[in-house]
Parts: sequence; C-alpha cells; structure tokens
Amino acid sequence: MSVSIRAAQPRDGPAILAMLADLASFEAAAHPPRLDVAALARDVFVPVPKLNILITEQAAGNDQTQIVGFISYFKNYSSWEGQPGIHIGDLWVSPAMRGQGIGSALLRYILSQNEGKRIDVFVVRNNKARVFYERLGFKEQTEWCLYRIEADE
Amino acid sequence: MSVSIRAAQPRDGPAILAMLADLASFEAAAHPPRLDVAALARDVFVPVPKLNILITEQAAGNDQTQIVGFISYFKNYSSWEGQPGIHIGDLWVSPAMRGQGIGSALLRYILSQNEGKRIDVFVVRNNKARVFYERLGFKEQTEWCLYRIEADE
Repeated sequence: MSVSIRAAQPRDGPAILAMLADLASFEAAAHPPRLDVAALARDVFVPVPKLNILITEQAAGNDQTQIVGFISYFKNYSSWEGQPGIHIGDLWVSPAMRGQGIGSALLRYILSQNEGKRIDVFVVRNNKARVFYERLGFKEQTEWCLYRIEADE
Repeated sequence: MSVSIRAAQPRDGPAILAMLADLASFEAAAHPPRLDVAALARDVFVPVPKLNILITEQAAGNDQTQIVGFISYFKNYSSWEGQPGIHIGDLWVSPAMRGQGIGSALLRYILSQNEGKRIDVFVVRNNKARVFYERLGFKEQTEWCLYRIEADE
C-alpha cells in the first residue's frame, strides 16, 4: 500500500467536506458540520491557518490518487508549559481503508512535527477510539471537566 | 468598589507571574508554571498574541491602582462550528478580593466580546468553581474525555 501525507490544498476542499460530513454522521452530531467552502477559504487555506488540515492519499493507478483520510489541528496555549501546544480536532479514515494504520500514521506525523509539546484531543467517552489514542501514548485527564457555552445556532 | 478590566501590558508581567504562581499553588500543580518573563514577551505582549491576558485592577488611592485578578484565553477552532471559538485558560482573583464578583466580571467581559461563539474551559473536577461556571451558563460536556500527551519535562 502506498499512502502519503501532505498539507491540504484548496483543491482538496470538496473531499475534506465530504469526509467531515461522514464523521459527523458517524458521531451522530447534533447538526451537520458548519465548516464549508467559505470557511475553508477564510480559515484554512491562508498563510496563517486558524485550523490546519493534513490529508492522506493513496495511489489509485493512472497517476491518480484518492484521498482516504484527514486530520485537523490548531495551536493552543498552556501557561503551565509557557508555550503553545497542539489540539487535535478531527481525525477520519475512510471506512474501507481502516485497520491499515492510516489513522496512526496521521497522528504520528503530527506528534513527530511537535516533539516535546503538549498534545490534547477530545475523544467521545463511549468510543473505542480511546484505546487507539492510549496506544499512541495519550492519557485520559480524569481530573479535568470540559465546560462549554455553545455557539449560537 | 472601583474595579476596571483592561488588556495586560508588559509592566503587568511581574504581577501576572506572581498571581499565576499563587494559582499553581492553589491547584497543587505538578510543577511551577513555566510561563516566565521571556514567554510573556514572546507569546503575550506581541501584536498577535498566542495567549491573551486581561487584568482587573482596583483604585488604591493616590492615583495608584492594584492588580487584583486576571484571566487568560486563546482562540481555538471547531470544524462543527466552522469558526474560531475561545478557550479560557486561567482565571484568578486575589484571595482577599473574592466574593465581590470580580471573577464573574472578567468572564462576562470575555463572553460579551465573543457573543455567539463557542467558549470552552477546563475545570478541575473536585473544584467548587464548577458551580461558578454553571451559573454563568457553562454546561459540563460529559460525553467528551480529554486525552493528553504531556510536554517534555
């Protein structure tokens, strides 16, 4: 299997939005994701992105490639650490491509680019992905509760 | 009581670091906070801060003021919302000044500046501050677990 990882480009927008819709459906989200073409242009495909997206693609013959997964992240900040860290947003691998280490490869790529930094991710409590993150070295922070005021509908 | 809120300035650095040390002590943190004068200069007191800090000060007579609290925050990003949100980092009010609504005022100031956006904060599980955040409209997100890889020591 030949799979590569690269920063998302504007031409990947439709594939990213399709995968994000699949992820929202998988997580039974309360509403469809609001990231759209305009938000991608404004917040992602800019010199200083507010959200970073990496995609992974597979050789599909005839010099073509097929996008089979993505991961998104942004920089956070910890005064305890006195430096920025990374917050992983979304991670998605096409169902037909699972079990081949693509999700791990995406996450390991970000870890390798941010060695020594704190890396956070929110994982759905009743999701088997928890074991996946634990295998990669993440530890559940049971002493912290996430409190939130939701965005306006 | 005359209390005002303003963006922190470089001259507030020593007071901020002293309050942060008090906060770390209060939370029995595993190590002292690593935010220091150099990190403030590099990450906070710059045109595009990685961490934003507001301080609140009280008139202390003789045209002097005394800093009595601070709040820090940074921008996060939600693909579900398709826009940046706010993550509250630290909130601290000097012990002698508590019970006068200073913490609420700091938080309400940030809420008023970010109406319609999603606002997140991590609260220590066994901390009575949970009630404080709930009164201000925050809801515990019990379906999410925070997973973390810690920064290098």
